[in-house]
Amino acid sequence: MSLKEKIISRVGTDLAAIETALETNLTPYFSLVEKTARHILFAGGKRFRPLLMVFCARLCGSDNQNLYRFSTIFEYLHAATLLHDDLVDDAKFRRNTPVAHRVFGNETAVLTGDFLLARALTIAADTGLLNVISVISNITEQMSQGEIEQLHNKGRVDLTEQEYMNVIRRKTAVLIEGACQVGAMIAGATNEQTDQLKQYGYHLGMAFQMADDLLDYTAETDTLGKTVGADLKEGKLTLPVITALKNARTEDREWMLQLLQNKTFTTDDFNKFKKLLTIHGGISDATQKAQHYVETAKESLAVFSTSPEKELLEDIADYALVRRV
Amino acid sequence: MSLKEKIISRVGTDLAAIETALETNLTPYFSLVEKTARHILFAGGKRFRPLLMVFCARLCGSDNQNLYRFSTIFEYLHAATLLHDDLVDDAKFRRNTPVAHRVFGNETAVLTGDFLLARALTIAADTGLLNVISVISNITEQMSQGEIEQLHNKGRVDLTEQEYMNVIRRKTAVLIEGACQVGAMIAGATNEQTDQLKQYGYHLGMAFQMADDLLDYTAETDTLGKTVGADLKEGKLTLPVITALKNARTEDREWMLQLLQNKTFTTDDFNKFKKLLTIHGGISDATQKAQHYVETAKESLAVFSTSPEKELLEDIADYALVRRV
Repeated sequence: MSLKEKIISRVGTDLAAIETALETNLTPYFSLVEKTARHILFAGGKRFRPLLMVFCARLCGSDNQNLYRFSTIFEYLHAATLLHDDLVDDAKFRRNTPVAHRVFGNETAVLTGDFLLARALTIAADTGLLNVISVISNITEQMSQGEIEQLHNKGRVDLTEQEYMNVIRRKTAVLIEGACQVGAMIAGATNEQTDQLKQYGYHLGMAFQMADDLLDYTAETDTLGKTVGADLKEGKLTLPVITALKNARTEDREWMLQLLQNKTFTTDDFNKFKKLLTIHGGISDATQKAQHYVETAKESLAVFSTSPEKELLEDIADYALVRRV
Repeated sequence: MSLKEKIISRVGTDLAAIETALETNLTPYFSLVEKTARHILFAGGKRFRPLLMVFCARLCGSDNQNLYRFSTIFEYLHAATLLHDDLVDDAKFRRNTPVAHRVFGNETAVLTGDFLLARALTIAADTGLLNVISVISNITEQMSQGEIEQLHNKGRVDLTEQEYMNVIRRKTAVLIEGACQVGAMIAGATNEQTDQLKQYGYHLGMAFQMADDLLDYTAETDTLGKTVGADLKEGKLTLPVITALKNARTEDREWMLQLLQNKTFTTDDFNKFKKLLTIHGGISDATQKAQHYVETAKESLAVFSTSPEKELLEDIADYALVRRV
């Protein structure tokens, strides 16, 4: 049984309950909003963030009847940012399906994103916990600014590793961190437990995005659900490229820089680019760093005694690296 | 002294304090966000919504030190929707200035809107009042859906008065209603007081939007700060048109319908269209209805005894109709 199958076998019931919660808590009054929201919400998402919230809450002993409902906060928020980010990045496909703004128009995608953001916050208010609400609104501030920073960095071939790390923290890690932290808060966990789960989520989120960025150079288009090399076409520098550029000798470096600045390339060019990423340690270095984040994530769970929930969270951390889609 | 001058003379100190609060509470970490947010925030806005919140709170006896800070919620929220709505409506100018998405790009406008929305919610969380947070997130749900509905209705020449009223309620009235309601909540007002100020805000908001829609047919481009006839060009039916279409005889009605469907027209056409709106009671009917909403708004204040705050709120209600910009 693969790690993926092992995880799925233990979260099947929860996944079904989360799907139902995502359906019942959407409650738009206008059918076009519903159609657009459903397009992004029910297109094969893994419900990674809601699952994390639910399991972190359970790890802290919660049997709150509203866990599934509250977990939708993180999927709605995630879907809202996907709608806006796909538009901002001018993406074409997501999970092998045309992106929402190409199906329903830019206007509807923007406004449905706003609606989903608002739904997330309404449900956050229903937790009755002010610190939860502050976490959620803070996440939203960070994410919107992270995406703007990423946008602003496009085409910058001098992007540093530190700048890259800052962007993926804001763009990806804060939401996953928030899901884990809020799970603990809803459970009424101790400050130490909450802080450790926040750490777990942060490190997992960083590893998750680093792995995602690696896939753009290691996966095939069919499995990725979007065109490989998209980051390169957009002039978006990720860790493998930053590292390879740092390590490469003059000739290879010049060739890579030229490709990065042209943004048009043949399949052969792309294959050569990938080869150079490997030769100059970009792939291995980024993989090792992601692995390190996964280990730190798992170490953050040390404060908890062994339980099926803890084991699952450890497996999810490992899965961040082995996943191929 | 005009009504406008009378109002301004009494809110000058508050306006200055609100401006300062809008500056100090923005706190973006990224300069492009700040530039874009400032473009929409500091471009001559009247601070209508923050002022209403502050004065409703004072009417209910509040001396909360954070009133100005909390009042920024409503300007940030308003600015967020303006950024997204201008993009969605493909507007060119606002207050005689090119709209933000034309200056900074669509992407930055979308994401800065998200940031401002998130700032509003972070500050709402700082009130420490769960019911305030619920009101704010609810407003956001309503507004995004109202704008989608308006977008969806564009080009529909069979729009009914009821449909128009629903859209302007969601698009405009809920935010003004919310500002007044939240002012009462922050003041710890009684349920009756809160409900009456909510009613005041709702009716004022409806009148405000009806007056705004009238201006598109009664103002000059210079004073309006955007091109007159914009609604007509966008195929957006407002109350004067809905009423005139209902009242007009066959020939005039056909001519108006044709213009509405073509969406291109000369200045002569536009002047004839305006004349037909007058002849067939569109202007007078919409003016009377707006006036009725203003009266109902003022009547909602009956539960409060006479005070400078009450008098100001009454004057603001009257001003909704006489304003020309």
